[in-house]
Amino acid sequence: MHRHHVSVAEGVLDANDTIAAANRADFDAASLTVLNLMSSPGAGKTTLLERLAPLLGDVVLGVLEGDVQGSYDSDRIAAMHVPVAQINTAAGFGGECHLDANMVRSALGLLPLGELDLLIVENVGNLVCPAEFRIGEDARAMVISVTEGEDKPLKYPLMFHSADAIVINKIDLLEHLDFDLEELRANIAAVNPQAAQFLISARTGEGVEAWRDWLLERVA
Amino acid sequence: MHRHHVSVAEGVLDANDTIAAANRADFDAASLTVLNLMSSPGAGKTTLLERLAPLLGDVVLGVLEGDVQGSYDSDRIAAMHVPVAQINTAAGFGGECHLDANMVRSALGLLPLGELDLLIVENVGNLVCPAEFRIGEDARAMVISVTEGEDKPLKYPLMFHSADAIVINKIDLLEHLDFDLEELRANIAAVNPQAAQFLISARTGEGVEAWRDWLLERVA
Repeated sequence: MHRHHVSVAEGVLDANDTIAAANRADFDAASLTVLNLMSSPGAGKTTLLERLAPLLGDVVLGVLEGDVQGSYDSDRIAAMHVPVAQINTAAGFGGECHLDANMVRSALGLLPLGELDLLIVENVGNLVCPAEFRIGEDARAMVISVTEGEDKPLKYPLMFHSADAIVINKIDLLEHLDFDLEELRANIAAVNPQAAQFLISARTGEGVEAWRDWLLERVA
Repeated sequence: MHRHHVSVAEGVLDANDTIAAANRADFDAASLTVLNLMSSPGAGKTTLLERLAPLLGDVVLGVLEGDVQGSYDSDRIAAMHVPVAQINTAAGFGGECHLDANMVRSALGLLPLGELDLLIVENVGNLVCPAEFRIGEDARAMVISVTEGEDKPLKYPLMFHSADAIVINKIDLLEHLDFDLEELRANIAAVNPQAAQFLISARTGEGVEAWRDWLLERVA
């Protein structure tokens, strides 16, 4: 994050924590479980949500989409008749490369929080800054696709360290790649031995149920 | 970028431009062509440089590697006996998600600028903030891999708009993906009709010569 002036940055993070606590109180009042979902651009977050939504049974899902600009992802979520709101960081938030608690707070009025059981916040695609900003979430999940290389946990440790669940996506492509899955898994474990790891193909649906079950434990 | 306080952010960008101009003067004094190379994490920047380096003939290459932490990429470049210096944004630069002119300036003394013809600066993997900071470069290139989805130019327009050349990488995987290459190319052209587009597989080497030729025109 931008810390040319450390005192400014620390003030920003303190203010963020205060607003995150207010979000948390609102989520608790609505008995709502909130997941902060993060990844690189193009790792497959939205496709994963498209696969997840039909598998949630009676659990009512809502989605908050974060993008620099545009509504490409929220249009895809809305097409499934899932309640969704869009945050554009280019619209009033300076084109930020992440969501923060204030941006999330600004959009909560656009969702029927009292009717939802699970709110998934799809963050801006970025492996650095989103990890620095708590938004009042119950848990964090991140997606890493096998096309991104085995070294990413070591190069972006804060993101991997802060995740409660790590979805390893695009495993349908493994046979076509020079990619060492065990090396990726060992690198993840080196940075975050506690994180649950899930092997998934959002494209084919393989493995999505196991991640769904992890999520539903959070909701219950 | 972080613009909670717009006046601070504008001051940061003004200061950056001043330092970028100083870098530019040093590059000119050394008759050095400088390329700022950007992409998402895992798009294949380092593999592309590994393919490029043996194809440069008499042109002397140097590389400046930007990462939040670690020296995984610079180790790969050093293994080819190419002069390389590492910038870690976590070491003195607050863990920034991009390189700026000051970070680049801090590392120039680590490279034999007078002996080089071409300096490639491999930026931190991020589709947002690196595009906001000039570093004194002659040209910008970005890498987008076909595994990242057709929508990325529309979701991250500043990065695509600011690139002089756009390398579409991992085309060896096209036959295994549900991916519309023409849609990606049209989305790129919508955001940046002037950019040269190159279809490349850094893994197989296909198409690298055409990008090399574009680069050598910049050097000449």
